[in-house]
Amino acid sequence: MNAVENNIKKKFGARVRTLRTEKGWSQEDFAFECGLHRTYIGAVERGERNVSLENIKKIADTFKIDIAELFRS
Amino acid sequence: MNAVENNIKKKFGARVRTLRTEKGWSQEDFAFECGLHRTYIGAVERGERNVSLENIKKIADTFKIDIAELFRS
Repeated sequence: MNAVENNIKKKFGARVRTLRTEKGWSQEDFAFECGLHRTYIGAVERGERNVSLENIKKIADTFKIDIAELFRS
Repeated sequence: MNAVENNIKKKFGARVRTLRTEKGWSQEDFAFECGLHRTYIGAVERGERNVSLENIKKIADTFKIDIAELFRS
């Protein structure tokens, strides 16, 4: 696992955490809305998950933003 | 697998194909540059793969664009 790959997971996780906390959602609320497990969301936010397209789409839809927005720094 | 999930894989695959062909790259050239297998790139372009963050990042880096650009329709 090189630094770049690790970085994208951390960067994505930090972005999800920022957007979630801006909305005032707990990980539990957010996970429920996404249809994903709370522990999975926690791992995503810590940069520990190599998230797939379909889950990226679920996360973006829950935030009601398009996927490109999720990757805007 | 619902239509929305299937759609994102097809949409992403079509976007990769458009960007690759605009550059005049064969699937083989592109796969080599990405460090991914040619058959994998073919499946991604047909919307058959639930591509992960790390491979999305490899694809974007090979196109020398940021990931957000990959998801712009």
